[in-house]
Amino acid sequence: MRQWLLADRPVGRALADGDFALVDAPMPVPGEGQILLAVRWLGFEPAQKGWMENFGGYVAPIELGDVMRGMGVAEVVESRGGRWPVGTMVAGMTGWTEYLVSDGEGFDICHPDLPPHAMLGVLGIPGLTAWHGFYRIGRPVAGDVVVVSGAAGATGSVAGQLAKVAGCHVIGIAGGPDKCAWLVQEAGFDAAIDYREGKVAEQLKALAPKGCDIVYDNVGGAVLDAMLARLAIGARVVLCGGISRYEQGGQIAGPGNYFNIILRRARMEGFIILDHQAHWAAMRDRLAALVLADRLRWQVDEQQGFEAAPAALARLFTGANRGKQIVKL
Amino acid sequence: MRQWLLADRPVGRALADGDFALVDAPMPVPGEGQILLAVRWLGFEPAQKGWMENFGGYVAPIELGDVMRGMGVAEVVESRGGRWPVGTMVAGMTGWTEYLVSDGEGFDICHPDLPPHAMLGVLGIPGLTAWHGFYRIGRPVAGDVVVVSGAAGATGSVAGQLAKVAGCHVIGIAGGPDKCAWLVQEAGFDAAIDYREGKVAEQLKALAPKGCDIVYDNVGGAVLDAMLARLAIGARVVLCGGISRYEQGGQIAGPGNYFNIILRRARMEGFIILDHQAHWAAMRDRLAALVLADRLRWQVDEQQGFEAAPAALARLFTGANRGKQIVKL
Repeated sequence: MRQWLLADRPVGRALADGDFALVDAPMPVPGEGQILLAVRWLGFEPAQKGWMENFGGYVAPIELGDVMRGMGVAEVVESRGGRWPVGTMVAGMTGWTEYLVSDGEGFDICHPDLPPHAMLGVLGIPGLTAWHGFYRIGRPVAGDVVVVSGAAGATGSVAGQLAKVAGCHVIGIAGGPDKCAWLVQEAGFDAAIDYREGKVAEQLKALAPKGCDIVYDNVGGAVLDAMLARLAIGARVVLCGGISRYEQGGQIAGPGNYFNIILRRARMEGFIILDHQAHWAAMRDRLAALVLADRLRWQVDEQQGFEAAPAALARLFTGANRGKQIVKL
Repeated sequence: MRQWLLADRPVGRALADGDFALVDAPMPVPGEGQILLAVRWLGFEPAQKGWMENFGGYVAPIELGDVMRGMGVAEVVESRGGRWPVGTMVAGMTGWTEYLVSDGEGFDICHPDLPPHAMLGVLGIPGLTAWHGFYRIGRPVAGDVVVVSGAAGATGSVAGQLAKVAGCHVIGIAGGPDKCAWLVQEAGFDAAIDYREGKVAEQLKALAPKGCDIVYDNVGGAVLDAMLARLAIGARVVLCGGISRYEQGGQIAGPGNYFNIILRRARMEGFIILDHQAHWAAMRDRLAALVLADRLRWQVDEQQGFEAAPAALARLFTGANRGKQIVKL
């Protein structure tokens, strides 16, 4: 069986071919009370680049030569009196490996009503992050004007659709006409801004003349700054991520318009979804119900084969992916 | 009688002599139900420079040729059946004038237990701002590590002392050894950092190795960024003001370390004290009680004569003032 190991740290630069090494490894053997998991899909998150850099300190360090850390969906293919029977589909931090042994700790059974790989997207870290950030931090009220950056991404698209469910007016910011069309025509956003056309602040001013009550930011940098220029009184700024941080060397520029947080009596708040695992099962039930009622659309960008993992991760940073980036093994 | 009029707007530059014009004006005459106020002290706030620029939009615009807007303490010297009898000392937005006529709207009677000019400082906008920001936004818990920038200023010194009253460990950041000595020896701060010596982030790391639970910022710019580098998990960042914004042309740099708000699960929030007038009287009673119990020290920097008003305002931006800047007429 094969594994992808971390071979270099992309500190202050984009991902490169030499960051990972594909190696053969001996087939793991489950002990008493353990299960053998065969990975069926891997899921990719922008945060994984930060993990490679040991940036942020909110997850355990990853060392050069370790199996690359990542989420996956796996099937139980052998059980020695372990937690689940053979055939069970589970999701969790598999890492970039074809097989692993586990006692089941840290894994959840896949939701019965949706495809297993939904646990990597709409029911996974992206969907849970959107839910927690939008409801718990954003505290929406019907009629709020909501702007979402990275709106066509796995998290942003859920956040924006949750805002529609909550009775809000929703503007998405995304890169390129295809993504913007999807936001309005498929995901039900009220409007979309293509940041590649520039003048994001001017476009947002035209679309939200009274300002934005909730800013849901996945991007940081210039896009965050443009949104901070348009805060409504009492706005809530949900800091979810900063993919623009990863695209360039060093630290991204801080938002020069942060002072509007004072002038507009606003709140900016961050969170880490890993803190809130006690709520995940309940959140997943709500998200699944919305999907089944066709009130929450989601897209999957499925690449093929274990060897495609590094390239799949890189797609997140060029914006090549359409929906949640996964790889089918 | 005399007035200072706004003659130019200091947009993107420091204050200059030509920004104000001293003029003679006819003595105002109270009508039925009105009072004539003789201004006894003027008080000075960094925000006044923003008002001159019509920056922020949270107060009514001020036009060239208008009497300069500002707080003052005044004595009722004539009453034609007005709200208060002759001899009453009141505080409010007098503007930079020696006399004015009023129906009393927007003025408060000075607190009976402290000198009248306390209404410009520890019981005025600075004290109320410190109270609201520290308690309502900062939500202190005993044992919290608190860092205050602009700590020797009229607001920062109150915020830091309220933190001591609340059982917190308090670090102040101020400019120069005199101010730092006052913070520790008189105001009871646990430690002080002289930002003019540089390496604020390193000094703060040494003084708060586990991070800061509350950041109370009056400064913005590089000092705010240094504090954001040292957030504890769950930190509250109280955005109170940004005097560094006023010192230079254009927009100040945004805080590049804002991303720590995510990583440290922090909250950054702003407010405008003018929104909370319903609470002012109750806050003033608490603040006065702390002063009378000698748990809250305050300093006044009193310049002399109406003609000193422009220079007194300028002292805020060079850091020349020691405590609340006022002028005695």
